[in-house]
Amino acid sequence: MQLPLGFRFGGLACQIKPSGKPDLALIMTEANAVIAGVYTQNVICAASIDWNRKITPTGQGRAVIVNSGNANACTGEQGIADNASMAAAVAQQIQARPEQVAVLSTGVIGRKLPLDRVQRGIEQLGGQTGRELADFQAAATAILTTDQGPKTGSRKVSLSGADIQLAGMAKGAGMIGPNMATMLGVICTDACLTAEQAQTLIREAADRSFNRISVEGHTSTNDALLLIASGAAGKPLAGESLRSFGETLFELCIELAKQIPADGEGAKHLIEIRVRGAADDRQADQVCRAIAGSALVKTAITGGDPNWGRIVSAAGFCGAEMEPGRTRLEINGHLLFADGEPVAFEAPRVSRSIADNRETMIDLVIGQGPGTAVHWTSDLTVEYVRFNSEYTT
Amino acid sequence: MQLPLGFRFGGLACQIKPSGKPDLALIMTEANAVIAGVYTQNVICAASIDWNRKITPTGQGRAVIVNSGNANACTGEQGIADNASMAAAVAQQIQARPEQVAVLSTGVIGRKLPLDRVQRGIEQLGGQTGRELADFQAAATAILTTDQGPKTGSRKVSLSGADIQLAGMAKGAGMIGPNMATMLGVICTDACLTAEQAQTLIREAADRSFNRISVEGHTSTNDALLLIASGAAGKPLAGESLRSFGETLFELCIELAKQIPADGEGAKHLIEIRVRGAADDRQADQVCRAIAGSALVKTAITGGDPNWGRIVSAAGFCGAEMEPGRTRLEINGHLLFADGEPVAFEAPRVSRSIADNRETMIDLVIGQGPGTAVHWTSDLTVEYVRFNSEYTT
Repeated sequence: MQLPLGFRFGGLACQIKPSGKPDLALIMTEANAVIAGVYTQNVICAASIDWNRKITPTGQGRAVIVNSGNANACTGEQGIADNASMAAAVAQQIQARPEQVAVLSTGVIGRKLPLDRVQRGIEQLGGQTGRELADFQAAATAILTTDQGPKTGSRKVSLSGADIQLAGMAKGAGMIGPNMATMLGVICTDACLTAEQAQTLIREAADRSFNRISVEGHTSTNDALLLIASGAAGKPLAGESLRSFGETLFELCIELAKQIPADGEGAKHLIEIRVRGAADDRQADQVCRAIAGSALVKTAITGGDPNWGRIVSAAGFCGAEMEPGRTRLEINGHLLFADGEPVAFEAPRVSRSIADNRETMIDLVIGQGPGTAVHWTSDLTVEYVRFNSEYTT
Repeated sequence: MQLPLGFRFGGLACQIKPSGKPDLALIMTEANAVIAGVYTQNVICAASIDWNRKITPTGQGRAVIVNSGNANACTGEQGIADNASMAAAVAQQIQARPEQVAVLSTGVIGRKLPLDRVQRGIEQLGGQTGRELADFQAAATAILTTDQGPKTGSRKVSLSGADIQLAGMAKGAGMIGPNMATMLGVICTDACLTAEQAQTLIREAADRSFNRISVEGHTSTNDALLLIASGAAGKPLAGESLRSFGETLFELCIELAKQIPADGEGAKHLIEIRVRGAADDRQADQVCRAIAGSALVKTAITGGDPNWGRIVSAAGFCGAEMEPGRTRLEINGHLLFADGEPVAFEAPRVSRSIADNRETMIDLVIGQGPGTAVHWTSDLTVEYVRFNSEYTT
């Protein structure tokens, strides 16, 4: 894994988390950079989300500060002020303006940020960022909450004679709340992009990756995905090389996004759901979400049960047009249902193919339309329920 | 509990269920009656649902035959023929036409009905229906699947000088699939209604009762609610007495509907969600469903955790208009969140009020609009996941 040029990274523990684990990460560029972002659709959103939306890409971004362990959401005026103080503290450390600093927060909601500790952490971080892989890993570790480990990925692509590097980090295992969860992602690249290009690219990549994953389908107050382009490598991108960069960015986003449900709280399976034959892509997506959202489908996969009835009926109730007589379902390549009726299959073999593999592939055709979609989710286990019911605020 | 005039009931075991438990119920009227129904919205639906939709209320209905243990769904042409054979067998027993017999099925989907056994059961049932409470209970027991016990209720109302009786039965504990589940309801009354009145009344009552409950939100292929009006008591209803009958019917539907999530698979709590202040009733309903559908909210209640963050954020992501600054949340009458910020509250006391009571009341105000809605759901427990993941088709 190689890092893009023009970046510095750092991460440490500043005691937001009672566990003493790392909870503060700084990702900064050495010169002005483009920062673009996509954010949660939740009406109830964190101070950081409102802040980032305001300081929309000016082409003069310099840093992203991330704290974990406290979402700074539902914290009113004080939360807004604390968020601005975080940006200001970083700006002072790196000789920039506060409006050049994006903020990401994740963790408990409804609690005041321990601003003193965060400010001391930022001071300390300012002096110890670096360009090494270990620095990148320190940052990728400090953004985690209930995750089992860091989620990172990288890509290299040669465009217009220059080697362009992309490196990303993500976090997320449950979607929200006092179990300290949320989905965050930061993609760093040394490509030279305009603010407008960066925004278009990250929006498109998010729509087909991070917007297509779920654990339990509960959208967080703090979700955010940022793209930071330092411009330190190569010339401005356009035409074919821009398209090619976008494709590489998309691939990296998929790689990072899939790591989230794969590490879903208590998850034993990553479930990939592919729907074809819908009237359009939107309806295919609707079917994917209904299947991914069904506790009955998720528990069936947990139990290694090739329960086609739960899958087909989940597709049937979501409101998408469907031709029951042309419906066809495969699990892990085994045909279970065709032309509206169950097909004879070796149940123990299919069951083993689910039980013995970490990934389950569901392929569903619902008609003859051109619409397709794919979605990734985790299964639903006793451990998920334990984890989320035994925790007390 | 008193039964309406003009009805006969019966129930027995005909060996559809491997357990040998009762699985065949007959509800019949002594003369022609009005039968009206509302059915599942699932595109993938059972043969019985298509049949009932076709034999729409003619005012000449005579019976409902219900089998449990087999949904006769996703069974193709054979399933359609088997369903018609069931209606024909009942018609022969009671000297009626097949089109006068509604059919309800619930249980495993994708398996052929053991028609021989069902037909023998119908022959036997034809000779042993009765007007006693024990007969009604036998029917209410034979429609069950994963339910812990029968779900029944009754009402009496005096209208235009006549005593009108209503008695209902329902079943349902999980929503679908090879765990043999589905929601069924049958309301019997001796009121004298036209087919049109019956259809309007049952549609309206369902919209505000059975359509507002959920366990895991997975709509079955076989859901149905029927209203059978024998007309054996009193004169045709109109105006104020019709309105008053409708109100009584609604009350009975609520009583029956709430018994379903209260008996949800593995459920420890019945959760009542009341939303006010939405832009309109539709949006209030949307918010209710998002909260009821959130695994994080459900597991919080399981754990006795007054986790307002999960509830408020579930409301925030469902697409309904919301005024965060005017949002107000109470659990079991304790104020937890007001004007966009958490309120100091005695957490152990609220926690106990959840843990010590079978019912949890969530009251959420999301703005100043006139929209209101109420919804009932069950919590999500380790037992639910065990039950639905350890079962194998």
